[in-house]
Amino acid sequence: MRSVDVGVGLLGYGTVGSAVSRMLAESGAEIERATGHRLTVVRALVRDTGKERDFATDEDILTDDFAVLRDDPRIDVVAEVMGGLEPVGGYVREFLRAGKPVVSANKQLVARHGADLFAIASAAGVQLRFEASVCAAVPVVKVLRESLVAENVHRILGIVNGTTNFVLSRMEQGGTYPEALSEAQSLGFAEADPTDDVGGADAAAKMAILATVAFGSRVAFDDVRFQGIDAIEPAHVAAASAFGMTVKLLGIATLTQGAVDVRVQPAFVERAHPLAGVQGSSNAVLLQGDAIREVMLGGPGAGGVETASAVVADLVSVIRTSGTGFLQNDACWRELPQLDPGRWSSPFYVHLDVADEPGVLGNAASTFAEHGVSIARLVQHLEPGRAALDLVLHDAMIGSVEAALGELAESPQVLDRPFVAPVIAA
Amino acid sequence: MRSVDVGVGLLGYGTVGSAVSRMLAESGAEIERATGHRLTVVRALVRDTGKERDFATDEDILTDDFAVLRDDPRIDVVAEVMGGLEPVGGYVREFLRAGKPVVSANKQLVARHGADLFAIASAAGVQLRFEASVCAAVPVVKVLRESLVAENVHRILGIVNGTTNFVLSRMEQGGTYPEALSEAQSLGFAEADPTDDVGGADAAAKMAILATVAFGSRVAFDDVRFQGIDAIEPAHVAAASAFGMTVKLLGIATLTQGAVDVRVQPAFVERAHPLAGVQGSSNAVLLQGDAIREVMLGGPGAGGVETASAVVADLVSVIRTSGTGFLQNDACWRELPQLDPGRWSSPFYVHLDVADEPGVLGNAASTFAEHGVSIARLVQHLEPGRAALDLVLHDAMIGSVEAALGELAESPQVLDRPFVAPVIAA
Repeated sequence: MRSVDVGVGLLGYGTVGSAVSRMLAESGAEIERATGHRLTVVRALVRDTGKERDFATDEDILTDDFAVLRDDPRIDVVAEVMGGLEPVGGYVREFLRAGKPVVSANKQLVARHGADLFAIASAAGVQLRFEASVCAAVPVVKVLRESLVAENVHRILGIVNGTTNFVLSRMEQGGTYPEALSEAQSLGFAEADPTDDVGGADAAAKMAILATVAFGSRVAFDDVRFQGIDAIEPAHVAAASAFGMTVKLLGIATLTQGAVDVRVQPAFVERAHPLAGVQGSSNAVLLQGDAIREVMLGGPGAGGVETASAVVADLVSVIRTSGTGFLQNDACWRELPQLDPGRWSSPFYVHLDVADEPGVLGNAASTFAEHGVSIARLVQHLEPGRAALDLVLHDAMIGSVEAALGELAESPQVLDRPFVAPVIAA
Repeated sequence: MRSVDVGVGLLGYGTVGSAVSRMLAESGAEIERATGHRLTVVRALVRDTGKERDFATDEDILTDDFAVLRDDPRIDVVAEVMGGLEPVGGYVREFLRAGKPVVSANKQLVARHGADLFAIASAAGVQLRFEASVCAAVPVVKVLRESLVAENVHRILGIVNGTTNFVLSRMEQGGTYPEALSEAQSLGFAEADPTDDVGGADAAAKMAILATVAFGSRVAFDDVRFQGIDAIEPAHVAAASAFGMTVKLLGIATLTQGAVDVRVQPAFVERAHPLAGVQGSSNAVLLQGDAIREVMLGGPGAGGVETASAVVADLVSVIRTSGTGFLQNDACWRELPQLDPGRWSSPFYVHLDVADEPGVLGNAASTFAEHGVSIARLVQHLEPGRAALDLVLHDAMIGSVEAALGELAESPQVLDRPFVAPVIAA
């Protein structure tokens, strides 16, 4: 097999871009052996061509002018490792329209503008791949799309944000949310502005992408209901522990009764469940289907080299496959409705702060019962003048649980806003 | 895209074959959408055409005459779900030579005759795929080969046999080896003749295949040193527990100093290690590389439907990819030497039954020291007239550990054969 030279254009040459460049240089022989192609970075778009880089490259490769990259005839395939929505979205569209395949590590771009981008790719007959946009080197997109093609994957559970998993793991060993977050920041596991991570937006974008691939129907970022970990208190972590559970920020994508529900929120996970053991900044995704029952994938979900590894795998996949059937491109082939959010069902954990008065417990129990919600387990902690109720509810619709909690919250016996989280049984 | 009809020939129509046939029928639309191809089983070779099948098929599809299958011009691709070495190996060779791609679920065939089979496939310019031969629906071959193509994967740790993991999980909850095995048999997790499973041969074949793919150098079944779980006693399980560890039958493939070592044996795994939590009959494989650090894949490692899912994924991969570069075919591109088995190094757990006499402990410690082996942790249990020593050794070469144990075994103070197992730190 004669080797073919393939020119790679990079949109961005920061941590990930440098790592892609280094990996293509250092693993060039492996890739050539596997594919018959030699991949070489020929141009990279950067903001400041004078800035020092993790992996230095020839000066004439870096440019701050998009037109130079766009018009370079040596570029056969493009890796987008720049981030943000604009101007990079426009750059990606131009390359796709020009018939150049693009590999993107940009979850926000894919989750928010996927419909548009894939339509352009499809019209131009080129591929748009995005493995690196979800969980870095953990190859969950490829596995969903290629290994589980004949599966009906109907549920995805994912710990897809390393920052929040690190913070929750630390809180479990003792410590408040601010303490754990500041430790994560000092260790480099959380950014100076951690809003997207701790607020759940980062996880929501990833779950939108995974749900789209798994269910074959477009789920955009705005379709995902998400909630972060900033309301998690040591008392919640302790309550989980007392029930033999652990608190995780969980993405849950469900295909049920022909409708899709995707949400991100703190969940109480039973200790014997495979996701309960995912520690620190690791990511893990559990795919549940008809035949496979469940397959779990895990590993580091972030990091420059890890992300670069997924970008390189996508580049290799682009150059060795042909055609633009959906297996290589957009996974959407149907339009499924969104599930009425109140009809999403699960067992739940509920925390109530109540007055230490006779009848409070009975009142709570009968309010739940009126809404068709039954209580599986209950622990009451007495404090001076008040009591804390920790409840585990049987499988119920979240709408019914919230209606019951809304009624209870209006009672003068309930002293604070109730806390509710789904329970993931082992 | 116009749909193309692809005829599938099945070697075998037992549990897995029936499940493949059912899945191709029931997921035909999904596969066609993803690939543009409609896969249909056109012939299946069976021993007894009159036998009842899990998924019935037209009578004229089943045949007990290989020549009928071989000469059927409608067959474009073959799935081998028959098992055994002969006659099936000859059938596979005939198909490959005739230019028909083959997908095999047969770990013993691939692990023992891979070199020959891949040479024939390569000469004929067709693919031989084998995802289903390792861990059923857990797509470890595809991930190693396609997602980690630019990685230097240098170590694989695998729980790749569900029967033994079930037995060890049960022993951890109390119970002897025979009790746990008989429970596994009554629940269908172990076969009537469990020799291949409990003796380690099944795991050894799978580790040979994974090491070959990961390291790019042929590792055959005979290259794997293996040992089963039949010597595991409740005392070992209890000792592991006392050290915060759990006993697992572990496949360990290592690429170190340019040489390969593949072994299967009981190991003591620290509880915080991701493999320690793999319960019951599940499988899990941890791939350690330069950039990815580690990626873990887990799920059910056996079962007719699960295995069929991997066979179907391979069929889909065959029909949508072209060329016979090694990415689609044999992963071997170099010949690495085997590591001198005595030079394989690890921390170890050692159990010694000794006489309760002064100087025994000192004698053991100095014997280890003379062989350059140092002791990290030691627990002594006194029993009437004797003592049990549980030791954890620092990282050492197995050859040195065995030499020290050989000397100790000759001492009259050592009452029983020592037990040694590698320790996997979290």
